[in-house]
Order: sequence, then structure tokens, then C-alpha cells
Amino acid sequence: MTASLVLASLSPRRRDILQQIGISFDIIKPNYTEIPPSIGVNPIDYCMHNAQEKLRNVCQVYNNRIILSADTVVVLEDRILGKPSTDRESQDMLWKLSGKTHKVISAIALYPGKETSISAYDITEVTFRNLSQVEVDWYVKSGEGRDKAGGYGIQGKAAVFVRHINGCYFNIVGLPVALLVDLLLNHAPQLWPSAI
Amino acid sequence: MTASLVLASLSPRRRDILQQIGISFDIIKPNYTEIPPSIGVNPIDYCMHNAQEKLRNVCQVYNNRIILSADTVVVLEDRILGKPSTDRESQDMLWKLSGKTHKVISAIALYPGKETSISAYDITEVTFRNLSQVEVDWYVKSGEGRDKAGGYGIQGKAAVFVRHINGCYFNIVGLPVALLVDLLLNHAPQLWPSAI
Repeated sequence: MTASLVLASLSPRRRDILQQIGISFDIIKPNYTEIPPSIGVNPIDYCMHNAQEKLRNVCQVYNNRIILSADTVVVLEDRILGKPSTDRESQDMLWKLSGKTHKVISAIALYPGKETSISAYDITEVTFRNLSQVEVDWYVKSGEGRDKAGGYGIQGKAAVFVRHINGCYFNIVGLPVALLVDLLLNHAPQLWPSAI
Repeated sequence: MTASLVLASLSPRRRDILQQIGISFDIIKPNYTEIPPSIGVNPIDYCMHNAQEKLRNVCQVYNNRIILSADTVVVLEDRILGKPSTDRESQDMLWKLSGKTHKVISAIALYPGKETSISAYDITEVTFRNLSQVEVDWYVKSGEGRDKAGGYGIQGKAAVFVRHINGCYFNIVGLPVALLVDLLLNHAPQLWPSAI
């Protein structure tokens, strides 16, 4: 068994965060397609389920490695905002978020290389400025919001939209770092702190 | 007169943030040496003064450009933590922050290319996890905390230390983006939103 981590996610943001904190890892794409959230589903349950299913899928093949999966959803007034696939959807989503506070939930699931897997989630509140038409058009034109939960990425140009956050910043980007360290400390100490 | 901004700061973090949000700029080093904070000084006054003095210095030469300066201080229990210059100082500073909530204050000053300059500040609360000796040693060895206010950079490895933030994330990195947009909208609309 090797001490290095398997990241069961193709998200470039999650890859960047793990690199930032100096954890070495391999990337394996989970063979799992998210089911769109049904109306009235509990956002935490939905997010946790997605992270757990991605983990389960990769565990079936790499059952002697430490594996990490994650899922992130953006929630406005108890409804999950998906990933916009057109400019029109991007625009609509930004107007919904403008001037309001929404929640970002990221779930992570960890298989410590043996025994049972564990999962947990973190919630961060994000407050947007009142946006102008020029700003919305500029952002939609950039294409940065496409295929991102909630239609924006705080680590890019949408930084200008965010007035305030309450919680873990990295949770918004897609990987709650402090929560991840908690799980590693308790369940995979050979990765943290022994490997640092 | 050109619409582009002059950044009166050599901070690579401020440069990165401006690039992230797509504002073009030139960099001019202010010829101003910060005076170490005296005991009992008001941290907001100190930070605002530094930003204003950096701006004033660059304005003397480039008085037909839009100029932005900034200063950031880390405050624990009403005392400003400086920039550690030795490993010992780095270590001491991390232990002070461990398990506690501190404040990061960033002041920005803007000269809109004519008339009078304006300045403002933002405060973000940052809560650290309880650190372990291994983590402190690992961070000090990385050298990342050297010459950074408060002895850490959230945009690097110290991400693992931060449990929670309350306020603007970019304020911690060194440039309060939402506040900057407020100032540009009101005092330099040729840069925002007209130039986007």
C-alpha cells in the first residue's frame, strides 16, 4: 500500500487546492453520473449521496488506496441551483444570486485504504453584491460560469461579485480544506500529519 | 490619459487578484518605508495611513493616472502582528494564532486621475484550527510565512490552518475586491464597469 491519495474527481479546482496544500495524489475519474436533484430533495442528502457514490465507484477498483471524493452544490432559498449549460441559464442564475445570500455545500467522502469509508460536509454562506447588467453580461461572455455549480467560480472573475462569506472559503471552491484535514487526522494519519 | 490602472504595490498577491478579475494595470513601486506600528496605535488608522502614504508617493510622479495602493495588517487581541523575519518569529506567530480568531484589515487608497484621493478599509475575521507541532514545523520549514503580515498566506499552504472566515476572502489575501469595485464604480467608472 502506498501513502499517496487518489482523488476521485476531475475538477481542476479540487486538484489545485490539493496541490496548494502540498498533498500528492493521483486522479481517477469516477464512473458515476449524477442524477439531477429532484424537487424538494434535501441539498445535504443529495450532495453527500453524490460524494459517497463517486467514492464507492472508485473503491471497487482501487481498494487498497486512500481515496477522496467530493461534491459541491449551491443552494438558494432551499433549492439547488445546477450548472448552467447556456448563456441564458448563466444569466438567469446570476440575477437570482444578485444581492442575496446563498449557501454552498461541499461533501467529501474518504476511504482510508481499509475498513469503512467516512463522509462529512461543510456549509459556507456567500453574499453577492447587487450586480449590474454590464457586470452580468461581462461574466456570461467570459464563459467562466458554464458547468460550474451555481453558475460562478469565486476563484475567477466572479470574485468581484462576492461581498461577504461566512465559513470556509475553500468549501466554495469545491474542497473544504479544514474538514479534509480533520478526516485525515482521524482516519488517514499516514497522509496527515505524518506525510507532511 | 489612459484608462489603465497603476498598482502602487509590489505584492504578488495583489497583482494576482487584479489579473484574476481582468483589470489591466502597470506596477509602480512606492518609495515609502512603513514605520513599525507603535504600541497602542489603532490598527485601522495605521493601515489606512500606510495605504494613503504609498498612494501619495506615487501620485507625486504619475498625477494623470488612476492609482491604487493598499496595506494589510493582521490583528490579534488589538495588537498588530508584523512580518516574521526569522523561523523563530514565524513559529511564535503561528502559535499565537492557533485555535483563535484574529482580524485582517486591508486598506485601499485610490487616486482617480484627478481631484482628491479616497480611501477605505475592510475587516475579515479569520479563525485558525488548533495547530499541532508537526504542522507548525512543516509550515515554518516551507518558508511561506516569511515576510507576510501575520506570518501566513491563506492562498498557500496555510489554507489548512483556517477553519472559518467571516468577511471578504480577498481582503485576507491583500486586496478587498468588493470594496475596490465599490470605489471604482463611484470614482473611476471608466475602469469599472465601462472597461469590462
